[in-house]
This record gives sequence, C-alpha cells and structure tokens, in this order.
Amino acid sequence: MVAELIPQHSPASHSLADRATELHRGGKLEVRSTVPVRTAEDLSLAYTPGVATVCTAIAETPSLVNELTWKGNTVAVVTDGSAVLGLGDIGPEAALPVMEGKALLFKEFAGVDAVPICLACSDVDDLVETVARMAPAFGGINLEDISAPRCFDVERRLQERLDIPVFHDDQHGTAVVVAAALVNALRLTGRQLPEARIVVSGAGAAGVAVTKILLSMGAHDIVVLDRHGAIHPGREHLSAVKESLAALTNPHARRGGPSDVLDGADVFVGVSGGTIAEEAVARMAPDAVVFALANPDPEVHPSVAGRHAAVVATGRSDFPNQINNVLAFPGIFRGALDVRASRVSEGMKRAAAEALAGIVGDDLGADYVIPGPFDARVAPAVAAAVAEMARREGLARR
Amino acid sequence: MVAELIPQHSPASHSLADRATELHRGGKLEVRSTVPVRTAEDLSLAYTPGVATVCTAIAETPSLVNELTWKGNTVAVVTDGSAVLGLGDIGPEAALPVMEGKALLFKEFAGVDAVPICLACSDVDDLVETVARMAPAFGGINLEDISAPRCFDVERRLQERLDIPVFHDDQHGTAVVVAAALVNALRLTGRQLPEARIVVSGAGAAGVAVTKILLSMGAHDIVVLDRHGAIHPGREHLSAVKESLAALTNPHARRGGPSDVLDGADVFVGVSGGTIAEEAVARMAPDAVVFALANPDPEVHPSVAGRHAAVVATGRSDFPNQINNVLAFPGIFRGALDVRASRVSEGMKRAAAEALAGIVGDDLGADYVIPGPFDARVAPAVAAAVAEMARREGLARR
Repeated sequence: MVAELIPQHSPASHSLADRATELHRGGKLEVRSTVPVRTAEDLSLAYTPGVATVCTAIAETPSLVNELTWKGNTVAVVTDGSAVLGLGDIGPEAALPVMEGKALLFKEFAGVDAVPICLACSDVDDLVETVARMAPAFGGINLEDISAPRCFDVERRLQERLDIPVFHDDQHGTAVVVAAALVNALRLTGRQLPEARIVVSGAGAAGVAVTKILLSMGAHDIVVLDRHGAIHPGREHLSAVKESLAALTNPHARRGGPSDVLDGADVFVGVSGGTIAEEAVARMAPDAVVFALANPDPEVHPSVAGRHAAVVATGRSDFPNQINNVLAFPGIFRGALDVRASRVSEGMKRAAAEALAGIVGDDLGADYVIPGPFDARVAPAVAAAVAEMARREGLARR
Repeated sequence: MVAELIPQHSPASHSLADRATELHRGGKLEVRSTVPVRTAEDLSLAYTPGVATVCTAIAETPSLVNELTWKGNTVAVVTDGSAVLGLGDIGPEAALPVMEGKALLFKEFAGVDAVPICLACSDVDDLVETVARMAPAFGGINLEDISAPRCFDVERRLQERLDIPVFHDDQHGTAVVVAAALVNALRLTGRQLPEARIVVSGAGAAGVAVTKILLSMGAHDIVVLDRHGAIHPGREHLSAVKESLAALTNPHARRGGPSDVLDGADVFVGVSGGTIAEEAVARMAPDAVVFALANPDPEVHPSVAGRHAAVVATGRSDFPNQINNVLAFPGIFRGALDVRASRVSEGMKRAAAEALAGIVGDDLGADYVIPGPFDARVAPAVAAAVAEMARREGLARR
C-alpha cells in the first residue's frame, strides 16, 4: 500500500510535518452545488431542459456568462510547478498541495472560488497558449510559482491576450504587501519613499515586482542585488529583465555586494534567500528598516537585525510584522471581480498597498507595521480600494 | 446594465425558462475548503510551512498525489462547446452552464468533485494537447459535448497518452444506459441480444457508442442509419468512422431508409433527432422495443409508438423509462476513482450496464425497464461493478 509510505499519525508523533501530512489526506478542497438537486423539478431547472435557456442566452449575449455562471467569481490558480515555495522545480503534481492551499485562502478570505490548475508544460509559448485556451470558464488567472524570468513573459503575454485579470502573485502579491509595510515603517521613523535609500536583494519575480511598485510609489534610490552584486548599467551580461532594472534603478551607480550597498542605506528588502551579515545591518543608516523575507530562513535573524534596525519584518508567522501574500491576493481579486475589471493595473496594486497600510492607522508601532493575516478588515478594504481604482481608471465593466 | 437583458423574476412570470434563468444567477457551483482555516495553526498546516512536507513527499513518491491532494476524487468536465445539448456549436462560454450542471450531478450523485473546463480551441491536436497538459491535477477526464467525428480521436488519443480515465459521456454514458434498458426490455419480452434485430438511427457520438456496446454484449444484427440511410459496406463516400461501422454491422447488407430497415426489426434506438413515421413503427416485429431518445422531441411520440411497441423509452423525464446519462457517469467515475483505474475499459462499461439493469430486478415492467434518476441504489451499484471489473481486468491500482 502506498499509504504506508506516509508517516502515520500516532500519539508519540505530533510534529508539524506529521500533522500536515495527516491533514492533507484526501486533499483540502471540494466542489459543491450552490443550488438544490433533490427533485426532478430541481434537475429540470439546474440541468436539462432548463439549462438550455441559459446557454442560449449566453450564446446570444456573451457577457451574460458573467451573470449566469460561476465564471464571474472564479479564478484559476495556475502553475507549472517550476518554483514552488523554496523547493524549486518539483513539477505540477507536487505543486498541487500549494495550489489547493491558495484556493482555500481565496475562498476563506474573500469568497472567491479558485481552482488549482497544474500544467505539464514549461515552455512560455505552451503556457500562454494553454492558459488562454482554458480562460473562457474563469473570471481571472492567478499565476503561481512559475520561475523567473519566464513568469514575466507568461504574465505579460496572457494579459495582452485575455480580457480578464492575469496576476502573478509571487510578483505582485509580495510587492503590494512589502509596499504597504514599508510605507508604514517609514511613517513610523519619520521618512518617506522619495528620500529613502533602498536596497532590494533578489532580482527574481518578487524582487522585480517590489522594485517596480516602490518606483511607481515615488521611490528614487533603489539598488537591486543579484548573486553577482549590485545591478547597474555598466554591468555586462545582464538579462533583458535585469537590463531594464539597471535602467530604472541605482541612480548613483553603486557597485559591490550587500555590505557595500547597505552602507548608509535606510531600507533592506530581502527576497533572495541569501544571508546578510550583522555588520552590514549595523552599517545601515539610523532607524533602518529591515525586511528579511526569505522563508523559512530570513536573510538575517530578526533578533540580530533588531539590534540595529528600528523596524524588522519577516515572512514568518512566529515573528512580528509578517509579510504574507494572503493580505493582498484575496482582496485584490475580490475587488477586480466585483467590478469585472479587465486587468489589475499598477494603479490598482498601489491602491491595494495604500488600503492595506491604512488599516494599521494609529496603532502603528515597530512590531505592527502590517495587519495580521486574520484581520477581517483587510480583504474588504483592499477589495474596495481596488474596485474604486478600477472604476477611476476605466477598467471596470460594471 | 447587462442584467436588464435577462428576463426578470416576477409573480406573473413563472415559466421554466424564467425560473431556470433565476436559478442560474451567480452560477451553480462553489469551491470550498474541507479543512479548517481559522487560526494561525490551521494555516501553518494547510499552507506554509506545513504544506512543504506534503509537496516534498509527492516529489519523492509521485503516486502520493492521489492520497494527499484532491486529485484522486476530482474530474475535469471538458468541452469545446461544439455540440451542446441540441443547440449545436455555441462555443465554450455558452456551454459552461451545462458543464456546471454536469459537475453538480457528479457531486450530488457520487461525491465526485468535478471542475468545468471550457476550451477556446476546436482542432483535435489542440484539444488533446491542452487537456493532456492540464491532466496532472485531475483524477479523470469527462469529455462532454464535443462534436463527432472529432470526439472519437480526441478521446482515443487522450486515453493513449494519459494514465487516468478519459470518458466521453455523450458516447459511453448514453451507451451504458441504453444497453441496460435494452437488456431489460428484451428480458420482459422474452428475447436476448444475440437474436434481436436492432436498428440504431444516428451515427454520431451516441449512435457509434451504442452500437459498439451492444455488439460487445452479444448483439449480431444491428443496422445503423445516418441521414443517407442504412450504412453498409457497399456505400460510397463513407467517413472512416462509418466505414468501421459498416464492417462491424449490417450482416444482411440491408439498404434503404428507416421504414425499410425497421420492417420486421425488434428494436429501434433513435439518437439522431430525426422523425420516424407511425407506419414504420407499425411494421416492426411483434413486441417491438422503441427507444426514441431525441430531446426534447422524440423521433416518434411515445403515445404513438406505444400503439405498436411493447416497450417505449425516451430521453424525457415526463414519460416512463427515461434514458438519462446521470444513471451512468457518476457511478462509473466513482468506481474508477475508488480503485484508481487507469482507464474505463469496454468491460467496465458492460459491467456498469449490467449493474444498472440488475437494479430493476423483479419490478420489471413495460413502464419500468430502467431505474429513475433519483434511485439511490444506482450510483453505488454501478460504482461497485465498475471497480470490481477494473480489478479483474488488472486496471485497478489500489
């Protein structure tokens, strides 16, 4: 029996791994009917012959698919399993537990129905084509755990082709929450984005998106690090994505590794999985802000960073200020679906970040620059801000 | 507002069409979590960090995806919208209400989680490639409302490529229920399949599958009609599918139209949508069996057929002996998933038909050759028979 390969639940064995495995038996999701199916009459309305009326109505007036099916409330959570958590390219089957987890968060936090779609292809053309073909039954596409740099092209090309939101959460979910937390951290320490010296460690999906949202919110001085050090226009052999970063960032053409560029910096955002020495944090500007978001091992331990920085955030739930995407993606899709937005624009992402930051309000403190994941105010506030911005930008279709 | 285009519910307006439209607002399905998501502890088990253990386990032992995700209980209901009900090629969006209906029947009748997938492509290569790419997260593929003859190639090629059941319900669901009802009708009138003269009207998905299952159950003398009349080896310009039918059927090389071949026939199975004159039914053998399954308009009205035939069945719920696919597909997939069958073999389909026929038992009568759609014994009996046959045939993987 295959089941014997799985650690069995026993009184003596209650590790997180064992309990997580137990919980996952049979999966974490189900599809249910929202209408009664008990009598022949029920069947004649929900299925044949009644359903023919509804099909005909949609065939005649295509936009009715949003009213008369689950499309308007349903998102595909799409991956190719190429960059799953910190586990890397584990393939579509092994990625499914994460996609199910994402789907249940969509439902629990924002009432969005989400379906895991795990694709056995990795070529950009194939991914775009496959997702585009299956788009008719979905109101939005949440791309997930697709490795960089393919993720950038997949998202851009799909959004060009489809008239529903296409949103790569590893980029923009992270970016929105980081932006919200950073705005609050700077407010706490009496600064603003345009004057802050910022270092982003990591030029993958999250690093690129964090950099772009901060630039769009007024940041001027951002240095992005990859494994070879600071990205600047003079560096050779840059990929297309990094060349574009080089053009947009590092106005003072700083060079060198983390400890070089952190010297005097106000903000460190780590989304790389590397490590930062305590000495480098110590050389940052007074009232430094350190977001060490690598999971499960932050780039610098928060207790170490806390000796030198005014605000410390991580990706972990067991420290204060958890940067958790669940604060962003449920509300963003809720808002986009509510107004049937054709995409999630930069303005809508900024609006989400500002709404998220605003929830903290007067309770702002070094250990509270971002709401906790179970704060019930978050998704509605984010959704309302996103929907409002979609309307203002003319992207709302109802 | 788009909503104004839909007939509004009002006390004065209670037609089936109006009520069906009302019922469909917002769709008929939802995705729900089957595990708690209320606390940080819940989140740490169902999502990060706990989920990483499960992903790793599947990456190391791929078959665990069937135990530790929803894959093992989940079916994709896939269409391209090319042959929806009697409405024809109305496209993927307009087909979605039918796919949602199918999904809710899967859940209500057999506890199978089913996801509507409506594809914006119609080329056979594209359909095969797209479904194969999305197969990793599904335990089975139910093809639906894909027009003939493409449906035959799509199913065959997908089944060759995938190790999960691929089942085109318009073919095999119909065939299983027809076979069950026919076995019982012949038993009631003291005959058996091998000696019956059978006419099948329609050489599309249903007609081909009905013919094949009846041949595999021992029928010898079947004449298949298309719009040009009886299919026989001498006919010119036959498609590949019809050429294969010509080789397998019509041993007496009968020619002509419906009234020619019905002369002296024991059984008429209509899945064509055409019409059959009363005179043709009158010329059938004594104790004739007439299955006039076109919907909503049977090939011959049951009250007319009943003047000459011993048993009459239709596809409609408002006459006795409704041939309804819901008697087959939920139990077939339930059985196949329960033993993790790699496919639904001909033997498994026959086992399903025999189990379905067997439920009628001693209550057999002219108005009761097949159970009603809400008979709670049906899906478990079909599932058990299918699972047992999968084991006997070595197709079960647990």
